[in-house]
Amino acid sequence: MGAMLKRNIERRWREVFIHRHHGLVYEIETPVIMPAKVFEASGHVENFTDVIVECMQCHKRFRADHLILEQVGEVKGIEGMTTEELDAIILEKRVRCSDCQGQLSKISRFNLLFRTNIGPYSENVAYLRPEAAQGMFVNFKSIFNSMRERLPMGLAQIGKVARNEISPRQGPIRLREFTIMEVEFFFDPRSPECTLIGDVEDVKLSLLTEEMVKSKASEPIRVSVSEALKEGYIKTEWLAYFMALSTKFISELGAPVDSQMFIGKPPEERAHYSAQTFDQLVKLERWGWVEVSGHAYRTDYDLSRHMQYSGQDMSVFRKFDAPRKVKVLAAKPRADAISADHGKNTGKVLSVIKGADASVLRSRLSSGPVEVDGVLIKPEYVEFYEKEESQTGERFIPHVAEPSFGADRLTYLALECAYSEREDRVVLRLPPSIAPVTVSVFPLVNRDGLREKAYGIYRDLKDAGIIVEFDDSGSIGRRYARADEIGCPFAVTVDYQSLQDDTVTIRLRDTWEQRRVPIGELKGFLQGFLPMR
Amino acid sequence: MGAMLKRNIERRWREVFIHRHHGLVYEIETPVIMPAKVFEASGHVENFTDVIVECMQCHKRFRADHLILEQVGEVKGIEGMTTEELDAIILEKRVRCSDCQGQLSKISRFNLLFRTNIGPYSENVAYLRPEAAQGMFVNFKSIFNSMRERLPMGLAQIGKVARNEISPRQGPIRLREFTIMEVEFFFDPRSPECTLIGDVEDVKLSLLTEEMVKSKASEPIRVSVSEALKEGYIKTEWLAYFMALSTKFISELGAPVDSQMFIGKPPEERAHYSAQTFDQLVKLERWGWVEVSGHAYRTDYDLSRHMQYSGQDMSVFRKFDAPRKVKVLAAKPRADAISADHGKNTGKVLSVIKGADASVLRSRLSSGPVEVDGVLIKPEYVEFYEKEESQTGERFIPHVAEPSFGADRLTYLALECAYSEREDRVVLRLPPSIAPVTVSVFPLVNRDGLREKAYGIYRDLKDAGIIVEFDDSGSIGRRYARADEIGCPFAVTVDYQSLQDDTVTIRLRDTWEQRRVPIGELKGFLQGFLPMR
Repeated sequence: MGAMLKRNIERRWREVFIHRHHGLVYEIETPVIMPAKVFEASGHVENFTDVIVECMQCHKRFRADHLILEQVGEVKGIEGMTTEELDAIILEKRVRCSDCQGQLSKISRFNLLFRTNIGPYSENVAYLRPEAAQGMFVNFKSIFNSMRERLPMGLAQIGKVARNEISPRQGPIRLREFTIMEVEFFFDPRSPECTLIGDVEDVKLSLLTEEMVKSKASEPIRVSVSEALKEGYIKTEWLAYFMALSTKFISELGAPVDSQMFIGKPPEERAHYSAQTFDQLVKLERWGWVEVSGHAYRTDYDLSRHMQYSGQDMSVFRKFDAPRKVKVLAAKPRADAISADHGKNTGKVLSVIKGADASVLRSRLSSGPVEVDGVLIKPEYVEFYEKEESQTGERFIPHVAEPSFGADRLTYLALECAYSEREDRVVLRLPPSIAPVTVSVFPLVNRDGLREKAYGIYRDLKDAGIIVEFDDSGSIGRRYARADEIGCPFAVTVDYQSLQDDTVTIRLRDTWEQRRVPIGELKGFLQGFLPMR
Repeated sequence: MGAMLKRNIERRWREVFIHRHHGLVYEIETPVIMPAKVFEASGHVENFTDVIVECMQCHKRFRADHLILEQVGEVKGIEGMTTEELDAIILEKRVRCSDCQGQLSKISRFNLLFRTNIGPYSENVAYLRPEAAQGMFVNFKSIFNSMRERLPMGLAQIGKVARNEISPRQGPIRLREFTIMEVEFFFDPRSPECTLIGDVEDVKLSLLTEEMVKSKASEPIRVSVSEALKEGYIKTEWLAYFMALSTKFISELGAPVDSQMFIGKPPEERAHYSAQTFDQLVKLERWGWVEVSGHAYRTDYDLSRHMQYSGQDMSVFRKFDAPRKVKVLAAKPRADAISADHGKNTGKVLSVIKGADASVLRSRLSSGPVEVDGVLIKPEYVEFYEKEESQTGERFIPHVAEPSFGADRLTYLALECAYSEREDRVVLRLPPSIAPVTVSVFPLVNRDGLREKAYGIYRDLKDAGIIVEFDDSGSIGRRYARADEIGCPFAVTVDYQSLQDDTVTIRLRDTWEQRRVPIGELKGFLQGFLPMR
């Protein structure tokens, strides 16, 4: 049931974030294992680390900041501290091994990437992706080209990622392997307007802005998306758009808007790639405020880094409204000086100079003669000058807004929000769109043809693609209880009246209300609650 | 489009193999990374290897059997050969490095598991799963218990697996990382009857049985499922049932039954866990006969191995029809001999002997006195005898039938089977159930309100969860061509008549036939072609 619930949450996310934006956002699939170079470019090899400390007596290893928090209590700014600063706290506050009370080693940094090798050569180091984003960045240009070179364009993935946590805890909240659901939304920073903002401008967001965090406010403000943009709380419209979608999505999973909040992360707590980050938190009974999604304005950081590390051009073309005159540097060969040195090879030298990039050539020649394409070029061969050119556009690196969710946390969230008790038993009030089983069908008794009639209804609903259970064991009360406990929103009972007039009762899980409906209307009634994909 | 096609194939597989069997087959999710112990138990650490050879000059590494096949041609029985036999062939046939003609090293075995470490301890070796099956075996007992202890029961997974191929080729056919779709179907070997066999008994299978393979037949026979079982070609009903489902499923993806075949694998070519294996092959234009699914009768191999390696009881209880009298060994303490040695501690010794398993105790005592629970027991303390007991049942290890598919190969298969050309352009005849885009909506012209009307239809279909595109650029012919090329099965055109009578034309991709239909019927018409999940 848990796996089915998770699958349904993924399906619903796909519908809300991808399918409703078909033509603007595309789902892709990229590998979990990628070459080391990708994560050198992304900055993860350098920056994706946690601080680790080892007990010198029992050799158990701990995440240093967590150990300090446990033994010392909250320490201001701990997320941004150097290893030396943390060492000092351990010394001063006498932090010890929580298992054997042994003394602790100096702190070091532990990289959270899972490492492996590709193929039979041990030098081919690879890592498991810690986020799906990098696959979308390295494939951006090729997809942009096949999708008719249009911006804005979003790429999305739902898939496994792995983070080699030092000591994960809190069950489904922090897993070493989990399912991420991410959109990387590429746009032109000169045209950052969100074409869909009108659909969400009145959606209210609970915000604790970066400023408010700095001034230690703890109560979020409730502002509409349009206010949040006008006041500059959110730096770019697409980020605000996805934050509004997320607010609605998380509400649909069962967490009321009152128990949601977006927190602006101060620079020292942001990931290395982000110019603005909001964490979306939900207040859970069991774990307190827990992050359920992250919303980062990644600017052009990632595409620029991949361009630099791979040598592949990640820029796209922006057309000017009208052609513009621009001044560019040009190189004019001096035929006299060249022919004096090269005689009948002068033609070759001329074409090498004409083919070279003028700025690069000038910079290289500033320190004397250089070889270009096998030809020695002396400074006196070339005259540099500025000329006017008409350009129709320019190249730039797109910016990125990223909403990112963990499907496993959302599964826990949906379970906790749905959990209720009534008359001493569990009623799981899961929304029908994500409930694992949509309907249970019961015969009132197993005789007089009731069972056969009920089974026929069960078969019809099953053939219509509805997830349906047939239950004919125990009392009706016991069967309702079983359905309530797995969060099945509807129960259909076939009774003696059904034999006469082809109607059945539908019982609603949340109110225990019963309605009489014609059998012929069942399918349509149930399908109205279900997403299609 | 490719990612959407693959997702739709997975969705369709989930519907056919899981959802239609809800209550019998359950989808679960288990990790990609699992501790080494799991794959020691499964036999993969020992057996999941390929033969590798290195060029002693350029140090390139090759899969030895593939290199031999390339340079020598087909070699009978190569799949079952030892490294020494392969070394002999390389020597005799003068097989060389295919890159630099250098001499080759001796052959060794290369393990195809991707290796990594879990957490901050380097001794915690783990592997990426090469199949989803092991996660279902290690979780079998706990799921069996929560699902009310009923057999048969199937577990299914769709997820990523990784195999560190020495030199993968053939594009999507052999990937180091791919998506597997597997059912592990657990049943009692004493009640191996498939309750659903009636649904498929007339399905015709193309079989090249193990016997036929041995006698070098190459033309498969066409037999019904019931004949195949009666003749003993297929050893167990559930395997036959899934082979029938697979035949239908692969046909639905576009490969006609004539180009399908099941090949029985001789023992030396079977995986180490299998008592019978059929590979389902499809004849592809580009790659010849390619395996698209595997059907293995894994018996109790896996559960037994995990039981042995983990010490966890994987057996389940089979109730007898009526209680049976059975003879069991019993141990009777000899109080006189014991009290002579132990005096007032006699009671303790008595209870130790009564608490011990009689067979184990007898076997241990056969070589002299032993210590049990801190008490020294001498052979003369115990008298063994057989007694009759009434038993209500017995414990056994379930058997397993496994159908297993690679989603990436199936995506290629669907593309190749759908590819056609008509009037010099591409028409991708993908089945509507898996086509990435279901319908395109066009206004005949972009004036007189036609565009607005068409856009309204587009919005309505989109809101109904249908994947729909709106295309108003270029001629109608060009728009049909674009829709045909991405395999969109239906195109709806809004024309001047639509303004008068609210009808549109639907054009069918495969016949180019056009039908006039009321706008109100569009949604129902299209939904009829789509699976729900």
